[in-house]
Amino acid sequence: VESRDALAARDAADPLSSLRDEFVLATGDEIYLMGNSLGRMPRASLDRLTGAAKEEWGHEVVDAWAHWVDLPTAVGDRLGEITLGAAPGQVLVADNTSVNIYKLLNAALAARPGRRAIIASADEFPTDRYIIEGVAAAHDLEVRWLTPHAIVGPTAAEVAERADADVACVLLSYVHFRSSAIADMQAITDAVHAVGALAIWDVSHAVGAVPVALDAHDVDLAVGCTYKYLNAGPGAPAFVYVRRALQADLTQPIWGWFGQRAQFGMGPRYDPEPDVRRFLTGTPSILGLHAVDEGLRVLGAAGIDRLRVRSTELTALLVALADEWLVPLGFLVGSPRDDSQRGGHVSLRRDDAPALVPRLRERGVVTDFREPDSVRMCPAAAYTSRVEVYDALARLRDLVASG
Amino acid sequence: VESRDALAARDAADPLSSLRDEFVLATGDEIYLMGNSLGRMPRASLDRLTGAAKEEWGHEVVDAWAHWVDLPTAVGDRLGEITLGAAPGQVLVADNTSVNIYKLLNAALAARPGRRAIIASADEFPTDRYIIEGVAAAHDLEVRWLTPHAIVGPTAAEVAERADADVACVLLSYVHFRSSAIADMQAITDAVHAVGALAIWDVSHAVGAVPVALDAHDVDLAVGCTYKYLNAGPGAPAFVYVRRALQADLTQPIWGWFGQRAQFGMGPRYDPEPDVRRFLTGTPSILGLHAVDEGLRVLGAAGIDRLRVRSTELTALLVALADEWLVPLGFLVGSPRDDSQRGGHVSLRRDDAPALVPRLRERGVVTDFREPDSVRMCPAAAYTSRVEVYDALARLRDLVASG
Repeated sequence: VESRDALAARDAADPLSSLRDEFVLATGDEIYLMGNSLGRMPRASLDRLTGAAKEEWGHEVVDAWAHWVDLPTAVGDRLGEITLGAAPGQVLVADNTSVNIYKLLNAALAARPGRRAIIASADEFPTDRYIIEGVAAAHDLEVRWLTPHAIVGPTAAEVAERADADVACVLLSYVHFRSSAIADMQAITDAVHAVGALAIWDVSHAVGAVPVALDAHDVDLAVGCTYKYLNAGPGAPAFVYVRRALQADLTQPIWGWFGQRAQFGMGPRYDPEPDVRRFLTGTPSILGLHAVDEGLRVLGAAGIDRLRVRSTELTALLVALADEWLVPLGFLVGSPRDDSQRGGHVSLRRDDAPALVPRLRERGVVTDFREPDSVRMCPAAAYTSRVEVYDALARLRDLVASG
Repeated sequence: VESRDALAARDAADPLSSLRDEFVLATGDEIYLMGNSLGRMPRASLDRLTGAAKEEWGHEVVDAWAHWVDLPTAVGDRLGEITLGAAPGQVLVADNTSVNIYKLLNAALAARPGRRAIIASADEFPTDRYIIEGVAAAHDLEVRWLTPHAIVGPTAAEVAERADADVACVLLSYVHFRSSAIADMQAITDAVHAVGALAIWDVSHAVGAVPVALDAHDVDLAVGCTYKYLNAGPGAPAFVYVRRALQADLTQPIWGWFGQRAQFGMGPRYDPEPDVRRFLTGTPSILGLHAVDEGLRVLGAAGIDRLRVRSTELTALLVALADEWLVPLGFLVGSPRDDSQRGGHVSLRRDDAPALVPRLRERGVVTDFREPDSVRMCPAAAYTSRVEVYDALARLRDLVASG
């Protein structure tokens, strides 16, 4: 591994390093490695939120609905273009991820009547698992839980082995929330389609860090949040992707008035929009939509491919430092070593991880603990430097070495 | 009706008139009568939003979740105390109204297994009707639609006539979105309970204008939005009320991780909180929760009973002016004349209402059109003056009189 000085020189020479000036940064010697949990605030987002509150809510008031009504799809289109590989008209920003997973699962089940099974990973992110469990209980379905692996996620072969004509849909994460492993979206989607089921991808832990190619990979449905690498703030609205060819035939179960074709006609029966807007429910968070849009602007200006290159370099550095300093102290690297298989974060595993995370926090390094034994670290390409990664690992090393 | 000067004197003498200084007001001679659609922004809300974004998201970042996690119930408790007549531990602020109606309907159905009918009004607010229609379609239920009346809403006698042991729940609005009629919450709830069904009240068009007494009226479940009289901004989170005695036995269908008992234990199975928090889904909007709290602070300082007195005086003035100036021009008053039966807005009906609303807007009076023939006007107790009501009606009179 290079010296701290060499890494500082690399930071100085990297044109992307100036992107950090666009964010509200940690003060003092604090190092924030939780961009995968809650991304830091872009400076411009504060102005955007203040401006929207003052001008639109404050002065336009109800007249602003003339343009607010387009925000869920307009911001969705930008999200699709900048980070999801989705052509316009397929992405909607509204509701939270859990509600969106619920809508997509039910839409998929309704589109495959008579099929009685869902495939998912037993190691999936909790809210995905719980939502699946609830939907399965409501419809008396079988959930075929894939056996988790230590690091690498479900493979197409595993999906194919459990898939048959009774499977309505398969829900998997593109990047695993703990291990950071990237799934083979194309091969798994193909395996799902081979039995006539629908492929639902949760890209929450990928979007903004790893380029996603939903259109190119023939994905049917996708969902994700915006408060991680998209830096849209706590509880900002999540998104759904619904492949254009499926839209007119899919129905989601929450028949709210924002999905109604002539919303203010207020007609007697639910008559949903023919397009992705039928996945809207009630009033979306307008300030949240502004924040998503502003977060996208920052990432879009840098370009997702350039951010991915920098992210990969940062996580590779983290793994290399862990190998040199932490593996000798009893850590395991809980994330893929192959750059192309690893998302934007890295998990370092050790039995005392639950105690280490708060002690490391006292030393100014913000990470989180994930059951059962992971210290999860995320150097965000947009605002974490190589030197910060170096210093964070050094502090963890010194903490553990000192007992 | 008193003269404009007399009304101005009344405004000047009313201690509540100073409350309008707490809001961002219309400029020039514009008169905003849409507080029932989107309440105006409290000045302090801008500071609150800016402060929360800067200090909490900007500087505390992920550490802020230590206190953010309590916001849905803490703000819910304040909402319960200030406007809903609900003791602590029964109100939750999260998701939008449509999603919340969906959760409550499904919870009620699951609590009354085998019962195959829902009672609602055919003239209910559209999103309530559409959500009911979707839930009924999913569960193959019968909806017993109550026949609408010109002004006064469903009565306890009508509910009793349609209710029997096959009815799982009854969903009605406390204040009607068009006519402003206040329903007899106690009598109807009693009629619902008489057949062993659950009473669900939508208080969206009441909360913040008409005092609500959910505990005292034995209501089982309630829902409402916060962007009208609570002045929490566009798309601010809505709320649910779940009577304490029912909480442990009710389950809602969207099993998100924010309803999980040990959320970060991330255990293998959904094990919901034993209390109202089981009605949470995914991540709530944190900035939205701050805005709801700030809106409540403004109303709470004034007191809902005092606001109701002023609101009633304003709508009574509106009705009196309509009788004097507009009824002779062919208008009908589409709202109850009995103060105790009328909510915070008034509908004035005339066949050319669709054309009148935009023409009135050109003359600086902001109202809205509601199918089929209503000009809906809301003088908000918190920021509308008697003189504004006078001037708005005069402008409508002159507009119509001039052809």
